[in-house]
Amino acid sequence: MELQFLGTGAGMPSKLRNTSAVVLNLSAEGEGYWLFDCGEATQHQILHTSLKPRKIAKIFITHLHGDHIFGLPGLIGSRSFLGGDEPLDIYGPLGLREWLETTLRITQTHLNYTLRIHEIEEGVIFEDENFRVITQSLRHVIPCYGYRVEQKPLLGKLLIDKAVGAGVPKGPLLKRLKDGEDVTLDDGRVVLSKEVTGAPQEGFTVAILGDTSYCDSAVELASGADILVHEATFDLETGNLAKEYGHSTIGDAASVANEARVEALIANHISARFMPSDIAKLKVQGETIFPTLHIAEDFARFEWKDGEMIRLED
Amino acid sequence: MELQFLGTGAGMPSKLRNTSAVVLNLSAEGEGYWLFDCGEATQHQILHTSLKPRKIAKIFITHLHGDHIFGLPGLIGSRSFLGGDEPLDIYGPLGLREWLETTLRITQTHLNYTLRIHEIEEGVIFEDENFRVITQSLRHVIPCYGYRVEQKPLLGKLLIDKAVGAGVPKGPLLKRLKDGEDVTLDDGRVVLSKEVTGAPQEGFTVAILGDTSYCDSAVELASGADILVHEATFDLETGNLAKEYGHSTIGDAASVANEARVEALIANHISARFMPSDIAKLKVQGETIFPTLHIAEDFARFEWKDGEMIRLED
Ligand SMILES: [Zn+2]
Ligand SMILES: [Zn+2]
Repeated sequence: MELQFLGTGAGMPSKLRNTSAVVLNLSAEGEGYWLFDCGEATQHQILHTSLKPRKIAKIFITHLHGDHIFGLPGLIGSRSFLGGDEPLDIYGPLGLREWLETTLRITQTHLNYTLRIHEIEEGVIFEDENFRVITQSLRHVIPCYGYRVEQKPLLGKLLIDKAVGAGVPKGPLLKRLKDGEDVTLDDGRVVLSKEVTGAPQEGFTVAILGDTSYCDSAVELASGADILVHEATFDLETGNLAKEYGHSTIGDAASVANEARVEALIANHISARFMPSDIAKLKVQGETIFPTLHIAEDFARFEWKDGEMIRLED
Repeated sequence: MELQFLGTGAGMPSKLRNTSAVVLNLSAEGEGYWLFDCGEATQHQILHTSLKPRKIAKIFITHLHGDHIFGLPGLIGSRSFLGGDEPLDIYGPLGLREWLETTLRITQTHLNYTLRIHEIEEGVIFEDENFRVITQSLRHVIPCYGYRVEQKPLLGKLLIDKAVGAGVPKGPLLKRLKDGEDVTLDDGRVVLSKEVTGAPQEGFTVAILGDTSYCDSAVELASGADILVHEATFDLETGNLAKEYGHSTIGDAASVANEARVEALIANHISARFMPSDIAKLKVQGETIFPTLHIAEDFARFEWKDGEMIRLED
């Protein structure tokens, strides 16, 4: 699993930060890319990465402010033009369907794939054998959802020596044991999967929130998560503005991370008022409350591997 | 008057060319900027220029394909945020109002200025004392308009020696004569404006067309223009595709320029299939038919001054 930030700014694009978009790259987990929010020029940002638009399998929209959705119609169209033929699922608040359908109709955009629009409410909005996605409402000036992505426990590794020792011949029976199935050998003996596999491994949990003031549901969505992606539009000195506009300070983000006992916090949605030279100060303000803190830049990549998050360098 | 290209690509953004947008900068003529088409990330392109979004006074949309309009909602919102408080007029085909109003409503975008949407038909769509804008339908796969912008004749310069010689005292009377008014002196003599001013100067005419196959209305719109901005999505070898998709080759663009007897042709809307190394070949193909030909790159600027067009270098 890898997280790649495509836009880490707030409200409007600047030369340094585009409007919101972050890719949860689940290629290694067999799920393609899941995109969270899609500000204007997200497809342009993708041009500067190795990502392929046709591999975007799902898009999750936190809320319907323009800086979170104005890149959707262009990306949807380009995904088709660039060979995307697998269905695309888009999740988001009420109103998303009307806007997208109106836009596609008026621009006469024809797609070579099935577009499925899901207008969501709080709760489990997606579940398959590997993942579960849960949403809750946050506290913003318009309806806004946060997303919690839970990977289900992974089967334990096959202990091959143990299996062979138990008399299992090399071949398809090993694969079945690895996949959790108990098998009967030629001599009638039953070998249980759990006898020849290691303990199941815990999956990861990532919470990716939208625009929000500090709120309980942010803490709940992030509870015990490995990674929390949380907005930090303002610093401690501009906390009054944060409240007024339904946003968070870097301190609010760190407090949520702290109370939710997450492993790592990545702050995004950084106001253009902060120059690159201000970022160190922002970071210090957050670290006082929650030390394992990163502030994302556009194109920043984070990998989750063997239970740890590492920031990738290009 | 200056033309600045913000997007010169076709269909989708590439690293080298953004989707369509070109600014007709009429600041010197007192009309602000007139923007023609507004592909996604036009506001991002503006960040790399000295243009100010609040100075955009009018936007003319040729047609409702996404690569010509997906930058509109973001730019409209940012113009407000960046201090724009003068009314903004947007002209375009039927459907523009529904799309923009739906988009602004669903994203709850509030503007600090009056937005006036004009759904146009063929004919004179705008006229004031200095300019006239005329449209005609082009030949594309959806309704598409070309725009002809005519500057009205400019008053001749005041011949100050002649005026003083005629007994006009320095002061406000000179200004009135300069503005075309006849005046009566204290001694009762009438001085006619035309006696003390030079000949009226011709205004310029610029035709900025949208996506189109070769068609008579393109030639009519461009007839006798000083500058023609015409799409050239394809080269001579891919002319069959041009016809199929309602586009032009560089040869079609040059033929329109030739038949309309324009002074200069600027080709835009260049397919991403053409690498920078192919542009010279495209240019040669066009120049065989019409020699005064430029192929625009993103950020290319052209100035119209003293009856001549010059390409500005940065
Ligand atoms: Zn927002
Ligand atoms: Zn088009």
